[in-house]
Amino acid sequence: MTPDEFRHYGHLIVDWVADYRERCAALPVMSRVAPGEVRAALPASPPSAPEGFDAILGDLDRVIVPGLSHWQHPRFFGYFPSNGELSSVLGDYLSTGLGVLGLSWQSSPALTEVEELVTDWVRQMVGLSDAWSGVISDTASSSTLVALICARERASGFSLAGRGLQGRDAALVVYVSSQSHSSVEKAALLAGFGRAHVRPIPVDSAWAMDAAALARAVGEDAAAGRRPCAVVATSGTTTTTAFDPLEPIAGVAAEHGLWLHVDAAMAGSAMILPECRDLWRGIERADSLVFNPHKWLGAAFDCSLYYVRDAEHLVRVMSTNPSYLQSSVDDRVRNLRDWGIPLGRRFRALKLWCLIREQGVEALQGRLRRDLDNARWLEAEVRREPHWRILAPVALQTLCLRHEPPGREGEALDRHTLGWATRVNASGEAYVTPAVLGDRWMVRISIGALGTEREHVAALWDLLRREAARD
Amino acid sequence: MTPDEFRHYGHLIVDWVADYRERCAALPVMSRVAPGEVRAALPASPPSAPEGFDAILGDLDRVIVPGLSHWQHPRFFGYFPSNGELSSVLGDYLSTGLGVLGLSWQSSPALTEVEELVTDWVRQMVGLSDAWSGVISDTASSSTLVALICARERASGFSLAGRGLQGRDAALVVYVSSQSHSSVEKAALLAGFGRAHVRPIPVDSAWAMDAAALARAVGEDAAAGRRPCAVVATSGTTTTTAFDPLEPIAGVAAEHGLWLHVDAAMAGSAMILPECRDLWRGIERADSLVFNPHKWLGAAFDCSLYYVRDAEHLVRVMSTNPSYLQSSVDDRVRNLRDWGIPLGRRFRALKLWCLIREQGVEALQGRLRRDLDNARWLEAEVRREPHWRILAPVALQTLCLRHEPPGREGEALDRHTLGWATRVNASGEAYVTPAVLGDRWMVRISIGALGTEREHVAALWDLLRREAARD
Repeated sequence: MTPDEFRHYGHLIVDWVADYRERCAALPVMSRVAPGEVRAALPASPPSAPEGFDAILGDLDRVIVPGLSHWQHPRFFGYFPSNGELSSVLGDYLSTGLGVLGLSWQSSPALTEVEELVTDWVRQMVGLSDAWSGVISDTASSSTLVALICARERASGFSLAGRGLQGRDAALVVYVSSQSHSSVEKAALLAGFGRAHVRPIPVDSAWAMDAAALARAVGEDAAAGRRPCAVVATSGTTTTTAFDPLEPIAGVAAEHGLWLHVDAAMAGSAMILPECRDLWRGIERADSLVFNPHKWLGAAFDCSLYYVRDAEHLVRVMSTNPSYLQSSVDDRVRNLRDWGIPLGRRFRALKLWCLIREQGVEALQGRLRRDLDNARWLEAEVRREPHWRILAPVALQTLCLRHEPPGREGEALDRHTLGWATRVNASGEAYVTPAVLGDRWMVRISIGALGTEREHVAALWDLLRREAARD
Repeated sequence: MTPDEFRHYGHLIVDWVADYRERCAALPVMSRVAPGEVRAALPASPPSAPEGFDAILGDLDRVIVPGLSHWQHPRFFGYFPSNGELSSVLGDYLSTGLGVLGLSWQSSPALTEVEELVTDWVRQMVGLSDAWSGVISDTASSSTLVALICARERASGFSLAGRGLQGRDAALVVYVSSQSHSSVEKAALLAGFGRAHVRPIPVDSAWAMDAAALARAVGEDAAAGRRPCAVVATSGTTTTTAFDPLEPIAGVAAEHGLWLHVDAAMAGSAMILPECRDLWRGIERADSLVFNPHKWLGAAFDCSLYYVRDAEHLVRVMSTNPSYLQSSVDDRVRNLRDWGIPLGRRFRALKLWCLIREQGVEALQGRLRRDLDNARWLEAEVRREPHWRILAPVALQTLCLRHEPPGREGEALDRHTLGWATRVNASGEAYVTPAVLGDRWMVRISIGALGTEREHVAALWDLLRREAARD
């Protein structure tokens, strides 16, 4: 494609995206296609000859859009907000258009230095001390894997340089909460610890990790000759946005030499609000931290931030230095290939840089406060409605709720809950996420899409009551 | 940013990118900034109030562009081609603009199904049988890590469900070539094998793995009570584009139950040319394969493909299934979160889909054949020039060469090589990569940027001779 064709179709696509964002609110939030329907509507083999780009645009409307669930929809209350603020989208457009790679500092210096800069901007925005250094990765899953590998290597005296995990006498143990994200156990298993050495610590009535139970579990392992290695605490769990108590957890970690990794993937965004920072008091005592600006904050996916206090340790675990990547300035620059798993690196900093500059910190704070207000409003509405129950503290913008009409208990209640949640999603009017809390199904309402105003939350509340009353 | 502002600035950015691609050829290929220069030119703290997007565009020209090395430049001969074909760039623009996530099939069905479709298109394009299933990941580094973890779990009878690598009697061993990419050893170390259990197998005179040496090493480990686990073969090594002989390697793997992973990150693109497929004869006997369309083929970074023959094994190793990601159709669809490390997934298939459709397979083949012709032309030129030497077979589009004037040997020759290579890069006229081959520095010329025509290769050759003659 020539630059002139790119100009022509690029303008069409910008307009198409602008239109999509505008008309999104009128589309059914959740896709209604059946499994296999999208694939069956497209040719099974690639074309030998060029197709015009107009054909692609045609398929976009005919096949792709009906196959999407619309995360940028103002009545998207599923999973978590994955906000692609349009200023950030433009930053990503620059990155893709430039097509430069950061294999090393030298391979495109600005790519590395703007990444250093914006991760430091965000550090300041969430009130972390300058002892932290950050890097952009794809997802919290990857960063938590990196954190547990770094913990493994610290506890094992750099076993990777020798016999790895395969020559150890004392098994390394990882502590998680029963409410940790699925990626945490996955990371521990991928890092080779084994499920037998992953201890799920019970939670208190607010679904936060019980630090006393952690201390007991750590003590028991140590007494049995195992080696407590790492604890993953969550600031804002996926199901209920519970905050594990970092101060006492950090105390246990310090006493036993555990690596403390904090998963603040969703709730990290809230820390740009000074009034929320008490929720992660003790964060300065952690060793590593992951936080995803591609969620609530508005950076286009993927933009996950991984912060560490001991960057030298990270680099020692992750470094590779083949001759074709060496340069004469290597002792004076960061080579971000040594800060994570992938070698190749696109210019992801641009989307965060554009977001923060175009919005400004105060506007970002204002939007998050709007969402917190909306969550408090809905919480109050639900609490005053008979037979509806809020099941967990509403720490931020996620509500866990259930309709509990008289006579519905146990599995009958589960059937009722899944029934109305399914009808809500099938209506196309809103998208919510059913999940299990304790041993019963409930519904998560995650507020905070860019376009979600009070009217959309009110419409959701009407819809929930209407669909719950049908059964 | 409102859709209307997005329309306005989006058009500006499309035009800016089109201009950048047009004027790129006139820019110095390698950035001339000093370490810290870019960061120092930008504010150290984020703005409280919004800045206009015009200010961002100003900094782009003032600070960012001078800080880039231009991978899309027609005289970029460094590392490997990282082609962001403009049709693929537009596919990525759609993805970012849509802002949908594929946490599960249900969370945006088209995202998953188009990914299934295009990975199958590429499978057909490179002549693989339909026994292979593919998934898009970020980089070969990540896929090779996944492959070695899958190998670890197959050889250990799913140790992750028990004591992990920590309870094994017989150490698992991984075999690589001395010419394997740095990411291969890194993956083995991250997966917990330990460097003591990573065997670098020597190469033959063409820098390809010596399969007989592999057989001996595997036999010795087995005899010593260790458990040979996996071998990573490379189709197109980074330094010289050597092809490890897959047939005999697969024979060793079959005999000893090794997992065979093939790293075809760069050279996989060449397999859309039937005349090249003899280079990876035996590929059907591999267990897994990684190949990066974001290199030579032209998909905008990041777009790495990971293919496996036993998808069920992959899913069993990688699966997580928390309640908030379950849906009623899970037994009838692919949930790609279980095909790799990250949970979150953007609509990366669009950039491959747009590339293949807008170009058509024949035009992609034509461009790659152009680059192979250019490499053969340069090889012939170098071979007929006194004191210049081609150091490795030119299997595809990468040349390894050295200027060896009389009287320059050993370290003096290294100084000469690094001297002229540095002057070439500093000239801004071309970008080449010095690397160590054997124990001496040489220069890699990787041909295949989108805009690289014969005239650019000829200009490079003039430049090489001019700079080498200066010293």
